[in-house]
Amino acid sequence: MQLDPKRTISALRELRALTENNKGAQRVAFSPTWQKARDWFLNQLRDLPCHIRMDEAGNLWVKIKGKSPKELWIGGHLDSVPAGGWLDGTFDLLAGLEVLRTFGKSIPPLTLCLVDWADEEGSRFGRSLLGSSAVSGSLKKEEIFSLKDSSGIFLCDVLSDYGLDPEKVTEASKQKINAAAYLEVHIEQGPVLENLSLPLGAVIGTAGVIRQRLIFNGISNHCGSTPMDLRKDALVGASRLILFLRSVAYRYKGVATAGCCEVEPGVVTAIPGICRLTIDLRNLNKTNLEKMWNETFAEAQRIVQEEGLSLDCENLMQIDPVLFHPQLVELCKQSILEVVPQVHTMGSGPLHDGTEMAKAGIPSAMMFVQSKGGISHNPKEDSDLEHLELAVIALEKWVKKTIDWIVQSYP
Amino acid sequence: MQLDPKRTISALRELRALTENNKGAQRVAFSPTWQKARDWFLNQLRDLPCHIRMDEAGNLWVKIKGKSPKELWIGGHLDSVPAGGWLDGTFDLLAGLEVLRTFGKSIPPLTLCLVDWADEEGSRFGRSLLGSSAVSGSLKKEEIFSLKDSSGIFLCDVLSDYGLDPEKVTEASKQKINAAAYLEVHIEQGPVLENLSLPLGAVIGTAGVIRQRLIFNGISNHCGSTPMDLRKDALVGASRLILFLRSVAYRYKGVATAGCCEVEPGVVTAIPGICRLTIDLRNLNKTNLEKMWNETFAEAQRIVQEEGLSLDCENLMQIDPVLFHPQLVELCKQSILEVVPQVHTMGSGPLHDGTEMAKAGIPSAMMFVQSKGGISHNPKEDSDLEHLELAVIALEKWVKKTIDWIVQSYP
Repeated sequence: MQLDPKRTISALRELRALTENNKGAQRVAFSPTWQKARDWFLNQLRDLPCHIRMDEAGNLWVKIKGKSPKELWIGGHLDSVPAGGWLDGTFDLLAGLEVLRTFGKSIPPLTLCLVDWADEEGSRFGRSLLGSSAVSGSLKKEEIFSLKDSSGIFLCDVLSDYGLDPEKVTEASKQKINAAAYLEVHIEQGPVLENLSLPLGAVIGTAGVIRQRLIFNGISNHCGSTPMDLRKDALVGASRLILFLRSVAYRYKGVATAGCCEVEPGVVTAIPGICRLTIDLRNLNKTNLEKMWNETFAEAQRIVQEEGLSLDCENLMQIDPVLFHPQLVELCKQSILEVVPQVHTMGSGPLHDGTEMAKAGIPSAMMFVQSKGGISHNPKEDSDLEHLELAVIALEKWVKKTIDWIVQSYP
Repeated sequence: MQLDPKRTISALRELRALTENNKGAQRVAFSPTWQKARDWFLNQLRDLPCHIRMDEAGNLWVKIKGKSPKELWIGGHLDSVPAGGWLDGTFDLLAGLEVLRTFGKSIPPLTLCLVDWADEEGSRFGRSLLGSSAVSGSLKKEEIFSLKDSSGIFLCDVLSDYGLDPEKVTEASKQKINAAAYLEVHIEQGPVLENLSLPLGAVIGTAGVIRQRLIFNGISNHCGSTPMDLRKDALVGASRLILFLRSVAYRYKGVATAGCCEVEPGVVTAIPGICRLTIDLRNLNKTNLEKMWNETFAEAQRIVQEEGLSLDCENLMQIDPVLFHPQLVELCKQSILEVVPQVHTMGSGPLHDGTEMAKAGIPSAMMFVQSKGGISHNPKEDSDLEHLELAVIALEKWVKKTIDWIVQSYP
């Protein structure tokens, strides 16, 4: 069958109409709306000569057997955050489906797999990349039995409701025996490509994250009766660090964000006695990420000393950067350049299922499509339709180049 | 009767035991505990040859008639914030009572009035200085009928319960016909005197206040996918202003405080899209106060332009500085210097009933006693007992000097 990128757009629109309400997409994993999306997706496969199987972690595998048992994986996810958009995860899967259709009447040189990862977002149980980390091997059995949602319902009970055995979820990792490459095309969810007026980018890896809560402790007193030189103002200390974050991010070509800033007592007439700040540092380079944190922490210590404050520090998260396979990134760039005159190579701040695949040692890479306004996880999430179509075309080229690369690598 | 400062301490302790629970003083105006404090206070007056009267605003007046109808007023207040301390307002009143006792058996050259102001704190109805502003004339009749507490009970109904006619509250302003001077001794509620190791200070006025809410509007986006140069981070803008506040306060010898700082969406992984900051600027000099605000506002506008943000601004409060009577301040200093070797002249950041009296044109001044740690409106509020006793002694001297000054002024 001929590649038809407009079919991908139609399918996305159909799915949107089926699973969105006036607050946006509602395909939260293991919800009836998510199941509705999967049923719709299975129906899309009816003319495709493929094998369909749900694995032990709830991932849905669509396989076209090839001459070699070696597998090329293309991933995406139907699940969304609550009040999400129409492209995050779904575009990946439906673009992959469109590419698979072009192989429908021949036996490909190797096995092609399209995978709909289960619970990429982790919206309900707070554990993102659930399905892909079960396959990569990074999901711990304890997590499956300890995770519960905000109403106290356990993940393991929900898995049972969907016919999955919580004891066997980690067995999904057996899938990867024959995996030779993993490709994923995703909306950027950031403003970089739009800012460069480029439709497509080749992703070289996902950034590492260091996330900390810093608590500045000062002394709260009446704002009228305490002269400036006798204050120990926690918010002043935090403000100095917030401005430092920007300079350290520029210095090491990363990003640094203070997302939460809570002040106590938080009264107009009181000097802030406590300020709780969360900081999130990201960098594609592990050494630079560590330098960012070391310098931030040293600066925080300098500030509290100068301001007469004290500092508490709580580690919230630490993830190493993951670099994609250089050869697959190169093939991605070549594919993009066959479709548009210019390509941007870039890192991804957010994590993706591709991160898990790369961590598991499967040669992996991702392609990004420009996002309007960099907005995602929001009903306003959107991309130019032409850009989405270009991405489908580039993905087909990328898949074919990757098949050749795998065939050459495993003769 | 001989002045006995230790009697003031004993009385304060008695009142504390009567009106404090394990969360601190509970003498909120127009509450049963406040009424209990007043009943106790009336009982303290039993041996004093005085006239007692509650005015139309609920202020309690204790008068010792003198040879002249001219009146010297000494003020304080029995009401406290909920979970307050044992000295704020009560020390003023009981120190004044101790001084009045020394006039008990003679007819003073002029009439001495001790006034227990009603609802100085404004804790329940949000209108501080209620009783004194009824007397000064700054209380508006509309306020009396519009004010209600958090449970929806109207001030006017509560006044009726206490035998007061809401229609007549503002008639309390008639009191001031014969007022020749107003004196008040109060705990500092700040750290200045402690920092100078001085027990007592002469207050030259209360600072003016400009209070504003500044809202920095940026764009919230995912912290991982948005490079530093493409951000519009509202908290970064607010942080720059917070640090500017300190410099403008030093420049104009005032104080400046950002007390509330609320961030939206306030999520670890999201760039702050909105930051709501309250700022409170205080200065004893009106021109400098206005310069502080003008420069702060100009800086905020510069910041939002540089950061790609927008600014909303809401005026919350504007009060002019009020300067006390230079001659009464001078007499205060002289009195203090007869008791201790050194005196500090200082402004008051918080407002007091004395502010209302000065605004009404009554020559007024205040004396401050050192506060431990500058803590007030808190069960931990405390002062060195020796300092409190020194204040009672200095107050007696100040009252006598002021009587002489009034007699000389109105021969």
